[in-house]
Amino acid sequence: MTEKNKLPHVVILGAGFGGITCVQKLLSTKVRITVIDRQNHHLFQPLLYQVATAGLAPSEIAYPVRNLFGRKKNAQVLMGTALGFDFDKKQILLRDRTVDYDYLVIAVGGRTSYFGNDHWAEHAWGLKTIKDALAIRHRLLLAYERAENEKDEALRKKYLTTVVVGGGPTGVEMAGAVAELAKRVLAPDYSFPGRTEGRIILVEAAPRILPMFHPSLSAKAQKQLESLGVEVRIGEPVKDIREGAVVLEKEVLPAEHIIWGAGVEGTSLVRSIDTPQDRAGRLLLGPDLRLPEHPEVYALGDAVSLQDASGKPVPGVAPAAMQMGKFIARDIRRRIDGKDPVEKGFVYFDKGMMATVGRGRAIAEVGKLRFSGFFAWLAWLFVHLLFLVGAHNKVFVVMDWIYNYISFGRGARLIIRSHAEADPAVEKATSRTPTDL
Amino acid sequence: MTEKNKLPHVVILGAGFGGITCVQKLLSTKVRITVIDRQNHHLFQPLLYQVATAGLAPSEIAYPVRNLFGRKKNAQVLMGTALGFDFDKKQILLRDRTVDYDYLVIAVGGRTSYFGNDHWAEHAWGLKTIKDALAIRHRLLLAYERAENEKDEALRKKYLTTVVVGGGPTGVEMAGAVAELAKRVLAPDYSFPGRTEGRIILVEAAPRILPMFHPSLSAKAQKQLESLGVEVRIGEPVKDIREGAVVLEKEVLPAEHIIWGAGVEGTSLVRSIDTPQDRAGRLLLGPDLRLPEHPEVYALGDAVSLQDASGKPVPGVAPAAMQMGKFIARDIRRRIDGKDPVEKGFVYFDKGMMATVGRGRAIAEVGKLRFSGFFAWLAWLFVHLLFLVGAHNKVFVVMDWIYNYISFGRGARLIIRSHAEADPAVEKATSRTPTDL
Repeated sequence: MTEKNKLPHVVILGAGFGGITCVQKLLSTKVRITVIDRQNHHLFQPLLYQVATAGLAPSEIAYPVRNLFGRKKNAQVLMGTALGFDFDKKQILLRDRTVDYDYLVIAVGGRTSYFGNDHWAEHAWGLKTIKDALAIRHRLLLAYERAENEKDEALRKKYLTTVVVGGGPTGVEMAGAVAELAKRVLAPDYSFPGRTEGRIILVEAAPRILPMFHPSLSAKAQKQLESLGVEVRIGEPVKDIREGAVVLEKEVLPAEHIIWGAGVEGTSLVRSIDTPQDRAGRLLLGPDLRLPEHPEVYALGDAVSLQDASGKPVPGVAPAAMQMGKFIARDIRRRIDGKDPVEKGFVYFDKGMMATVGRGRAIAEVGKLRFSGFFAWLAWLFVHLLFLVGAHNKVFVVMDWIYNYISFGRGARLIIRSHAEADPAVEKATSRTPTDL
Repeated sequence: MTEKNKLPHVVILGAGFGGITCVQKLLSTKVRITVIDRQNHHLFQPLLYQVATAGLAPSEIAYPVRNLFGRKKNAQVLMGTALGFDFDKKQILLRDRTVDYDYLVIAVGGRTSYFGNDHWAEHAWGLKTIKDALAIRHRLLLAYERAENEKDEALRKKYLTTVVVGGGPTGVEMAGAVAELAKRVLAPDYSFPGRTEGRIILVEAAPRILPMFHPSLSAKAQKQLESLGVEVRIGEPVKDIREGAVVLEKEVLPAEHIIWGAGVEGTSLVRSIDTPQDRAGRLLLGPDLRLPEHPEVYALGDAVSLQDASGKPVPGVAPAAMQMGKFIARDIRRRIDGKDPVEKGFVYFDKGMMATVGRGRAIAEVGKLRFSGFFAWLAWLFVHLLFLVGAHNKVFVVMDWIYNYISFGRGARLIIRSHAEADPAVEKATSRTPTDL
């Protein structure tokens, strides 16, 4: 199996953190590698909320997969959507072709989980893709324009209200960033009454936000959020979400913007795999990260639910996915070299956690070390830059951060109208002169 | 009229080059100013083709109008779509309200002209807005992905063929940029047969490209284009454009990408104004730039067709629009101060023309001075940076230019899929882990 006429073919499905780490670690091995992703770019999702709040441009946190691997001799890149697998024939079914593999790594990530309330998706926006981020940016920016034209005070207030559901890192970062955008960037540029009265509400069912951190840090993050003007509602489960309103136990919050930062579950593709899954539709694998019936098929990241070889649950974070990618690459290499499959299996090494709230505000926990405030924020910036793919993107993100920090401005404050919104009568109006000096 | 209880109200409709220049020159005058634009941003259209070819990010050439004027005491900014005017009542009819004015400046620009063949618009894309540019970028990048999956050689070739119609500066710049993108950035990242055989064809009906320049420069620009691999077809009028094909007199060019860079005409709003117009629906004004029956209404830029006070036709270029904006501001100031309306009327000062073809390739003509090549290209870069609005944008564009120059890369090489294209079965697949560390 290992030594054929041609080299063994490793297919990596998904160019997220886990997928590209796995590819990078395999490049020097005697294999042919194919990377397949539905998008043409690797997305640095931890900064996606800054695209949604106009701080960064999409191209600054996305990197073309072909730029990474397109010119490597033993790697090829395919843009394609996987519809299913034939594990017996060792094939992936793409929409317009099938791809054979000798080893397969399923690194497709997860999708936003509404905990069984999928109909909430229509009103509470997830934040998983650039498209999602641009849709949120568009609506947040447009809301101030609409509020300016609105005579009705209650409606105006609603336009300026954002509810973020979920007190994990995603929700906290999003709530902080929306507050900064609204209060420091947008409100001062308008003159209508009530422009400074926009509400940003973070709703969390648990008794504290960021429950994976030490309680003292949760409390600090909450204070930091409140100093930005965010109302933090803890211990308040969401009962229902409707068009323009979040229903809590004792109150209905009218809000034009409802952002969902609460959970992740397995994608339909992952759910279609006939192997044990957890309640969220993620594959329950052993620490060898292989499908029990198909040991040449691996999975990683948000596609799996895992206790590592030391018995600890592995969190759904980028560093864990990257470590899994590295582990799988090593495992494949050992198998190809005819060595024993793997030591004891995957062990997650916890390097610590961080979450940022806004300008100069963050918390971090590394082992027993806990810190917060400006220094934690600088550490957060540094670590995120470190893992951002591509020198171009690193440089541009730093520049935008410096700009945003100094000017309290937002470089990507663009409302790009869709054609559907444009009035046909003036469809092409307000466009301008062609080029020339 | 001039001295009321409140200050005279000047409304500038359109935040293009002419509009924002006019506002800037009026800021120190005792007037209230309202700027209305359908978009929330001023767009630096001369660099739009670089967004379409993945060299720049949209936010680098667009600047929020509110960032410019939102915090000025005597100026306000409205995002709104003008549907018509009531010149007798001195009102602009927006979609959801009316705005009164004492002085009105119509600076709405033009729209893409298909010279009476409006049905070509569906197949030959104009380039006027960021939306247009992103649509072109999306299709150019996706074409290589599709070609890779295509077995039929003729189809593959068609996917990689771009026809640019119109040999003016827009068409020339676009053709050069597409050639650079295809041949230097994309082709080397793929491995399918024929990847380097993409055709870029520039079609011009006149006997030479860039006819506003000296013939020797036209010839040089043509050579520069050809050195990038562009096929230049001069003296070949387009007879018809259909889905995927441009029909010339003696040949049909199959092309997946047809880009229209040929002409500008008046918008529907401008056409609806009851005053003499040229064949392209632009207002025929005298050198006072006022509507004859409504001397408090001015128009400028691509909304007008003009011979200046010295009898010379004014070209449809950004510097002309800016000079008109400045002239109108001065005229309004004089009228408010009770001075004589205006000297002899608007006189266009021609500072020269430039066009760029690509990396190190450009032509320039200033009076009798003509130059081309690397130095002309540097001059082109410099002048465009100078007029780009906003320090943020200047810095980022320079950085991207340096990056593109050094790396032959393209920072904005993103295919952002619309939801419509995504497969519902895997709608949210291939998205990745939420943030943490």
